[in-house]
Amino acid sequence: MDLGSLFSPSSVAIVGASRDPKKFGNVVLNNFMLTFKGKIYPVNPKVDEIMGLKCYPRVSSIKDKVDLAVIIVPSDVAIETVEDCGKKGVKSLVIITSGFSEVGDREKENRLGEVIKKYKMRAVGPNCLGILDTYSGVDTIFNPQYKLNRPSKGPISFVSQSGALGAAVLDWAHSEFVGMSKFVSYGNGIDLRESELIDYLGSDETTRAIALYLEGLEDGHKFIETCMRVSKKKPIIALKAGKSEAGSKAAMSHTGSLAGSANVFSGVFKQCGAIEVGDVDELFDLSRILAYQKPLAGNRIAVVTNGGGFGVLAADAIEECGMKLATFSPAAEKLLRDSMPPHVNVRNPMDLVGDADTKRYKDALDIIAKEDGVDCILVILLMQVSTLGSDVIDSITEVYKNKKKPVVACSAGGNFTQLHMHALEKEGIPAYPTPRKAVKAIKALWEYGKIKNKNKKIE
Amino acid sequence: MDLGSLFSPSSVAIVGASRDPKKFGNVVLNNFMLTFKGKIYPVNPKVDEIMGLKCYPRVSSIKDKVDLAVIIVPSDVAIETVEDCGKKGVKSLVIITSGFSEVGDREKENRLGEVIKKYKMRAVGPNCLGILDTYSGVDTIFNPQYKLNRPSKGPISFVSQSGALGAAVLDWAHSEFVGMSKFVSYGNGIDLRESELIDYLGSDETTRAIALYLEGLEDGHKFIETCMRVSKKKPIIALKAGKSEAGSKAAMSHTGSLAGSANVFSGVFKQCGAIEVGDVDELFDLSRILAYQKPLAGNRIAVVTNGGGFGVLAADAIEECGMKLATFSPAAEKLLRDSMPPHVNVRNPMDLVGDADTKRYKDALDIIAKEDGVDCILVILLMQVSTLGSDVIDSITEVYKNKKKPVVACSAGGNFTQLHMHALEKEGIPAYPTPRKAVKAIKALWEYGKIKNKNKKIE
Repeated sequence: MDLGSLFSPSSVAIVGASRDPKKFGNVVLNNFMLTFKGKIYPVNPKVDEIMGLKCYPRVSSIKDKVDLAVIIVPSDVAIETVEDCGKKGVKSLVIITSGFSEVGDREKENRLGEVIKKYKMRAVGPNCLGILDTYSGVDTIFNPQYKLNRPSKGPISFVSQSGALGAAVLDWAHSEFVGMSKFVSYGNGIDLRESELIDYLGSDETTRAIALYLEGLEDGHKFIETCMRVSKKKPIIALKAGKSEAGSKAAMSHTGSLAGSANVFSGVFKQCGAIEVGDVDELFDLSRILAYQKPLAGNRIAVVTNGGGFGVLAADAIEECGMKLATFSPAAEKLLRDSMPPHVNVRNPMDLVGDADTKRYKDALDIIAKEDGVDCILVILLMQVSTLGSDVIDSITEVYKNKKKPVVACSAGGNFTQLHMHALEKEGIPAYPTPRKAVKAIKALWEYGKIKNKNKKIE
Repeated sequence: MDLGSLFSPSSVAIVGASRDPKKFGNVVLNNFMLTFKGKIYPVNPKVDEIMGLKCYPRVSSIKDKVDLAVIIVPSDVAIETVEDCGKKGVKSLVIITSGFSEVGDREKENRLGEVIKKYKMRAVGPNCLGILDTYSGVDTIFNPQYKLNRPSKGPISFVSQSGALGAAVLDWAHSEFVGMSKFVSYGNGIDLRESELIDYLGSDETTRAIALYLEGLEDGHKFIETCMRVSKKKPIIALKAGKSEAGSKAAMSHTGSLAGSANVFSGVFKQCGAIEVGDVDELFDLSRILAYQKPLAGNRIAVVTNGGGFGVLAADAIEECGMKLATFSPAAEKLLRDSMPPHVNVRNPMDLVGDADTKRYKDALDIIAKEDGVDCILVILLMQVSTLGSDVIDSITEVYKNKKKPVVACSAGGNFTQLHMHALEKEGIPAYPTPRKAVKAIKALWEYGKIKNKNKKIE
């Protein structure tokens, strides 16, 4: 499926562009001017020029070709505007305009759908936030930039049935240094919905993990078929809302989704190889690790820490998640014993003790990374101690890059700590603030390993 | 129990004070000079003066009375140093020095204990971080301030069996704007341990919630008796590590604690009215709400949101946590219907829709806060939208202060959002980044209401 004209158009028309900074048509035009590399055509019959760009009365009056049109006009003129786009040969639409089935006007939405089909256009929306593509610079998000920071480039793509939730996640992702490739809020989903978008992202080069927020599914079979296929290539992480009776009623009122029972959905996700999460922060936590690290071959985890308490909590979480503390080989134990001071116990979880420095981390990690009986290393760093320097980040990164073993970090604290967590993130090592969050993320890597293996056997 | 000389001494001796900024004896002296209002006596036989303060060769050479001595000397001179403190009439000790039972030298620890008993001193430690009291300025935390930000004044006190974990939590608390009163890391617990500290904090004026990190208990019966008594007055929130087999072994190696089985401990907490949590972030999440808000009378929750998806997730979490979405009275429904635009559905969760402004929040909250059938209001704010202004914070705060109904907030996002979350926190309204976190916190308020009621009936 080619959605190139949607995500990486060479030219875009902003239909409903405005001079008024409070209007969505101004925010969206401004977004494109900030980040989009292709040609931008503002469309508004009432003005000749906006922010230095020539303004066109309608899309069909633009002489050059238009790949994508972003529709921000009032709903009563939306259909004729889309018809004009069709006549002009526009390939893709992002229809931000609301006032269709979500306010009960299904008839108007049907008519809109017919026009889109007639001209064989592909459309996102209506009643949506639309698209953010950090690589191409397409950004139809009409929230002001000072209220919603856009995430930096990265390997996660996110498809959301809820615009507001999607906006919050994008903004949060920026502050957590989580990089994203594509974001799609498809609103009423007149044409493109979850399944086709997942399919597209499955082949998208810059997407390494696909995150989903869903209330309902338009076509369950299509969703299962798509996810089964895509999850062989890339991890899919799904947050399903409306699983309870109370939530299901709320979802019906929100997106008109028949949410269905909790068990049915969990079964669907399991069947199609999608990894289910229970809350927004988990959607983040798991997407990050799955996008950056390779799946685990097994469930034997080594823990290296300078805080005993965090080590104990990690051991608890590992057992709770059905994984195991790795057993070190006698050879490794001897090497560890020889390189560690006497007050350090040489066992897993490996507590380097409160006075650990970078060298102690490096020595322990070097030995443990070579162990065949270790499938993943969880490095816990409590950066508050005076003995531990910033160069511990380099040692961890080096081990991760040389040994090609999954390495995950855990570090809790304020500014100084967060600086170092972000440094690890940038090197592809996700860092979590609590042992349980880190272990749950590792569990997802293990689960995805099983999903890939299972699929291999089927093929 | 009077531990005033420990937490609010009028004079303190820093024994092992140092001129070398890398030494703990320098960091601790510096801490006191920054925040402590009483008299400070550096003690070090090798120098006459440190950072402008006269330095004494030993504690007994100080002429004025000394309430508290912080011991940071090497372990081989610790016992004679403590003996000297006893002779001088020092009332309390924080013994940071390590090298006792934690490295296998139980005999030395016993001798230390005998000296402390002989002079009827009270002691925290050895092998500990010691005490932070944000009100008195006592701060024996030997981590450099640039690596470990101290939290601001606030209603939570925290007792931790692990120093490193405690340090991380303090630092994190600062960055999350969570205010604290007292922190105690008691290390090997030669004298004061969890139960006596809980007892003291139960009567401490500036403590409104007591958070605990435990690996094991020295005296289970004493702990139960203490918590049963204190939990009638103040909420106790406990994180127990070493509940799994793997974790229990790790705890034995870390603090020498016989961790005991998961079920036994959960039973103990339930029996004595402590609220158990499963991870470090939850210790925070629950301590904050329990310190700031009054317990719930019932489990009927009203949700007000400008993001439908977050409303659906909140409804799911409320049902999952055994609580209920409140039903609005017909009178309230009519008032809501009259004050809301037609595209807003008047039901719970109350979705004010993406174009909601402050007035819509204010109108909805004013009506809902008067409902007898509502025990708590969860306000979800997605601040990314252009229509919602910062003054929504004032409206929420006003409702909370006038109606005296518990109000909890949920808001996810980056800088702009976090600014507003912190503004709410400062007014005593805890703000959580996800619906499930907010609802779990509300559940703890409900649970604590039941604990208080149960205790009332027993009395």
